[in-house]
Amino acid sequence: MKVGIIGATGYAGGELVRLLMGHPQAEIVWYGSRSYIDKKYYEVFQNMFQIVDSKCLDDNMEELAAQADVIFTATPQGFCASIINEEILSKVKVVDLSADFRIKDVKVYEEWYKITHKSPQFIDEAVYGLCEINREDVKKARLVANPGCYPTCSTLSIYPMVKEGLIHPNTIIIDAKSGTSGAGRGAKVDNLYCEVNENMKAYGVSTHRHTPEIEEQLGYAAGEKVVLNFTPHLAPMNRGILVTAYASLKKEVTYDEVKAVYDKYYGTEKFVRVLDEDVCPQTKWVEGSNYVDVNFKLDFRTNRIIMMGAMDNLVKGAAGQAVQNMNLMFGLEESMGLCQAPMFP
Amino acid sequence: MKVGIIGATGYAGGELVRLLMGHPQAEIVWYGSRSYIDKKYYEVFQNMFQIVDSKCLDDNMEELAAQADVIFTATPQGFCASIINEEILSKVKVVDLSADFRIKDVKVYEEWYKITHKSPQFIDEAVYGLCEINREDVKKARLVANPGCYPTCSTLSIYPMVKEGLIHPNTIIIDAKSGTSGAGRGAKVDNLYCEVNENMKAYGVSTHRHTPEIEEQLGYAAGEKVVLNFTPHLAPMNRGILVTAYASLKKEVTYDEVKAVYDKYYGTEKFVRVLDEDVCPQTKWVEGSNYVDVNFKLDFRTNRIIMMGAMDNLVKGAAGQAVQNMNLMFGLEESMGLCQAPMFP
Amino acid sequence: MKVGIIGATGYAGGELVRLLMGHPQAEIVWYGSRSYIDKKYYEVFQNMFQIVDSKCLDDNMEELAAQADVIFTATPQGFCASIINEEILSKVKVVDLSADFRIKDVKVYEEWYKITHKSPQFIDEAVYGLCEINREDVKKARLVANPGCYPTCSTLSIYPMVKEGLIHPNTIIIDAKSGTSGAGRGAKVDNLYCEVNENMKAYGVSTHRHTPEIEEQLGYAAGEKVVLNFTPHLAPMNRGILVTAYASLKKEVTYDEVKAVYDKYYGTEKFVRVLDEDVCPQTKWVEGSNYVDVNFKLDFRTNRIIMMGAMDNLVKGAAGQAVQNMNLMFGLEESMGLCQAPMFP
Amino acid sequence: MKVGIIGATGYAGGELVRLLMGHPQAEIVWYGSRSYIDKKYYEVFQNMFQIVDSKCLDDNMEELAAQADVIFTATPQGFCASIINEEILSKVKVVDLSADFRIKDVKVYEEWYKITHKSPQFIDEAVYGLCEINREDVKKARLVANPGCYPTCSTLSIYPMVKEGLIHPNTIIIDAKSGTSGAGRGAKVDNLYCEVNENMKAYGVSTHRHTPEIEEQLGYAAGEKVVLNFTPHLAPMNRGILVTAYASLKKEVTYDEVKAVYDKYYGTEKFVRVLDEDVCPQTKWVEGSNYVDVNFKLDFRTNRIIMMGAMDNLVKGAAGQAVQNMNLMFGLEESMGLCQAPMFP
Repeated sequence: MKVGIIGATGYAGGELVRLLMGHPQAEIVWYGSRSYIDKKYYEVFQNMFQIVDSKCLDDNMEELAAQADVIFTATPQGFCASIINEEILSKVKVVDLSADFRIKDVKVYEEWYKITHKSPQFIDEAVYGLCEINREDVKKARLVANPGCYPTCSTLSIYPMVKEGLIHPNTIIIDAKSGTSGAGRGAKVDNLYCEVNENMKAYGVSTHRHTPEIEEQLGYAAGEKVVLNFTPHLAPMNRGILVTAYASLKKEVTYDEVKAVYDKYYGTEKFVRVLDEDVCPQTKWVEGSNYVDVNFKLDFRTNRIIMMGAMDNLVKGAAGQAVQNMNLMFGLEESMGLCQAPMFP
Repeated sequence: MKVGIIGATGYAGGELVRLLMGHPQAEIVWYGSRSYIDKKYYEVFQNMFQIVDSKCLDDNMEELAAQADVIFTATPQGFCASIINEEILSKVKVVDLSADFRIKDVKVYEEWYKITHKSPQFIDEAVYGLCEINREDVKKARLVANPGCYPTCSTLSIYPMVKEGLIHPNTIIIDAKSGTSGAGRGAKVDNLYCEVNENMKAYGVSTHRHTPEIEEQLGYAAGEKVVLNFTPHLAPMNRGILVTAYASLKKEVTYDEVKAVYDKYYGTEKFVRVLDEDVCPQTKWVEGSNYVDVNFKLDFRTNRIIMMGAMDNLVKGAAGQAVQNMNLMFGLEESMGLCQAPMFP
Repeated sequence: MKVGIIGATGYAGGELVRLLMGHPQAEIVWYGSRSYIDKKYYEVFQNMFQIVDSKCLDDNMEELAAQADVIFTATPQGFCASIINEEILSKVKVVDLSADFRIKDVKVYEEWYKITHKSPQFIDEAVYGLCEINREDVKKARLVANPGCYPTCSTLSIYPMVKEGLIHPNTIIIDAKSGTSGAGRGAKVDNLYCEVNENMKAYGVSTHRHTPEIEEQLGYAAGEKVVLNFTPHLAPMNRGILVTAYASLKKEVTYDEVKAVYDKYYGTEKFVRVLDEDVCPQTKWVEGSNYVDVNFKLDFRTNRIIMMGAMDNLVKGAAGQAVQNMNLMFGLEESMGLCQAPMFP
Repeated sequence: MKVGIIGATGYAGGELVRLLMGHPQAEIVWYGSRSYIDKKYYEVFQNMFQIVDSKCLDDNMEELAAQADVIFTATPQGFCASIINEEILSKVKVVDLSADFRIKDVKVYEEWYKITHKSPQFIDEAVYGLCEINREDVKKARLVANPGCYPTCSTLSIYPMVKEGLIHPNTIIIDAKSGTSGAGRGAKVDNLYCEVNENMKAYGVSTHRHTPEIEEQLGYAAGEKVVLNFTPHLAPMNRGILVTAYASLKKEVTYDEVKAVYDKYYGTEKFVRVLDEDVCPQTKWVEGSNYVDVNFKLDFRTNRIIMMGAMDNLVKGAAGQAVQNMNLMFGLEESMGLCQAPMFP
């Protein structure tokens, strides 16, 4: 299977390369990077010295579509929508790691992202690639919208409770903490070592673009419109997202009942691990892997549930899930190339 | 003013020493440390080499009460309650950095801390030393219960909204992130560098002992019993607490109205800084200082307010506030010895 | 191939488990850990939840020798020497990750390690498992002494220059920086997050036990006794060793000549990468992988060469090299299970 | 005393502001910053919110010279040399934190810095502001060249041994590790959090510009030209420089003899602390303070001495030493405003 990557020199692109190097069926034929055209890929990511010998290429979609079976676009918002067309989709499958095709309501997309959608005609067709929930649709898709990092961790942590109608959806509050690789490899003062290290802050409070994405997905589960609070925080670590979510219970439930609900949805899922009672997810326990660790705690004093999830934002939150989607789209074993155990410490 | 410290070799004790070194009116006469008796203090904290030449001493309260004007107990729960008595209080003022005298209802204390209170007779007299709120009582106190780190940051972030009746107290959810110095200097695997670094986790979910302390203080502001969710997280940094708190608004309010409320309570406070609109508090901006930075964001989609606070857990969250209390108790200028600007980066 | 691990719950032991999970020919049959007998292995390292379901076992060598084809001892100094015997070696191959069989001169061992060697009769037989240098001997070995982390990185960085007689061996000065996982998982105040974070220090200056190990190996290359300076430093990171070594050149050499020397020794080595001119090794570029990146810089002003190496101390510096040795001992492909690309960032 | 700062929004400039806020005799009248003209200073460094209310100003030297008693230039190489002139120096004293006036041989400066010196006529007059060594000259200076961070720590660590003729100067090898604030606040990919965190690397090997500065200063001590190796490393921490230096002893010496030598030079120095035997300097022990901790270890096996120093690069390595120089130039107590104890942890 021949793979083309557009945006191969960002952190998500680099992680795609790392994972695909270990994938028995995939071969990368195109290292797309506008910023580093003609530069050896390993000069941009020296970890790939003597592993990848190719040069970075420009974004020639026709050429790429002719050479590849699948294209990953790990690019800024708007790019994939601006280059996608029927001819491309007739030749190659596309996994878009940007937000362009995640949100079904184009008005919501344009409102939160402040850009005009260039290819609204493909929005309906695109499948939201949260594999554990939309597996069957992904298998048939030509175009997969790879979920955002926060939405993946948030949705998987909360989904069973909403789907089973055990919580009031509009009481959901999601407090998320992310490592700094989520901010990308752009040279900005805010992301300098000395600004991030020994520091914690919230950002994008009540305005972060992942909010409508989470609301839409949980809305499908709830069968009604969901409005919630989502607050991301920047944490002084390279990788990892930790989600702590709160919601009011509709009725009294026991630990065992809720555990059974989580097991119902994830008991047979390889990549979602429901931890033992009272064990809180930690980002370090999933680092470098495609796992999401989830758990919950019932608080009878406040009649709320606290739902928690931990994930590597670059793997399950980006490149790993993209490979998982590719595997599904091509009829391969879903976990192919994704079986690394997490690295600790 | 002669100062004795019991528990001088923990992180909070060390910070007391650092701050008191720069205090023009204070002189430390007793470096109490059961673990390091007769060892030079600087051998335990080498930053104090050639600054402190004293040896660590055992906890001889009679001797200490005879020598000192004020005693700080930076000790585990239960210690201060076990050694305090009328004779001591008749000779010296005491600032207890543990939780022993923070909670007025001894049953609540014993339930959450799982120990029997040894001196309930002093609970009523003890003043909860959140200076910005209880300033006048602190001035008259013999025994001050120095607030916990999380309660200081949480209460100051939320207090104006509760006091003014703008939010429903029982919808309050506090999601807090702390640096690792809050876990103390005990040798535990969980606090090893490799376990904390590159890691985030929640802990003590729905069971953390600072919960009733926050509930009590906000209860006074609300004029009714408050029950809330408090979830602490361990963050990979030495110092700093970041609080992100959520609550439902009782009625529609504008940014200016809420800003006016925060300014009403903190406009003249030196150590509480209400940041400019849309500026989120960051722990790095207060590091090493006694400041608490607070701010808020209104989310009209969900009718909630997000209240934020950032603080150095060892300064305003422990030793700095203890010194601030001492200053008040002795009629000194409240900010004496506490005027260092935060260190950045 | 059945594998037993003694000391499976230290950081090196944990890394062995992680690597062997991805090894197509190896199956772990014994998770030895005195400290956690009967506890589920994943309760000690939660990254292994739903990956390893076994319990930790005591160190029953007879039983282990009966069940396993190879035993890894990731144990404190002295342990392997205390349990090894002819019967065990007649049944299983042993890779010892401790220092017990690294040093041929038992007096030197006992002097630097301050313990009496319990099995000096096996020292001669034991092969020093620096695969790139002793490959053929390792293939025939029953007992392999897996090199220390610092000696692996130091020796590989310097070896070609000594072997080719281009530097004066007794001018060698090695300044090494290590991540904190090298200090082990023991609960010590010195290794607490707050003590290591934002801190750098040298330790064991002129007395570190890896000194004679490096001297011995470079002595073989030099054909004469080598005495050198080795100074380790603790760096605030989980993984990685960076070596910066200095030596005086015997004669004038050009960059190309020295490059040719490094290529002569490492040009066909998978796991030693000689970087391009002027590219300095970085520990992040090899993290999680079995690679050692080396390079050098000639300084004509001082007539010295600066030799540099970077490595993951838990992989090539411990568990990865142990697996590499196992592969060689059993006639498997040397890189089997070790082909992960480094993780960045 | 009225102080103007040019380059107030870099990390060294920010540290000058922090220190001068606590200086009883200094008042900052000019926050110079070309990049942020007319912006409130606290918007650039939010730690200064409600502490500094001034706006950033352009670099109007005539105006500045008219208003200020002393000017600090915390600017890139070449700037100070390009604006200095006799008229300015006749009105105000200048402390230049750049390298422009550190090196007496203008050819050496131009060769290492690759720029043409614009004001060579002031090089002779300028005093190299390493206070502990050039105190008397600083007191009389109009123009002080504030030493570089690495040279300060390196020179102070090695100086007594060279001055007393106990080591061969041309065997000196300096291996230095610096926190990332030394790289400045410019937005570069290399200094992003994810590139620096969990990483160590050497840089500028044999070509770093601080090399000739150290050689010149040690040359004065030696009474002869000194050529040495200096290798800086980037460490994943905000602040701190650790120097580990090696040199061959000219003759046998005992610990006590060498200790006496260090005490001879530093026994009465407030800011240089010679640690107790076998205590290695740690950067955390001096963080936020103007101290340099030094110590040494004799290695009789190799006949070398290992000299170590730790310092906060932004304080003693930049802003703190600049204030110390200012104090000397104006006849104030040398330690005024610099007496903060180091912050730990």
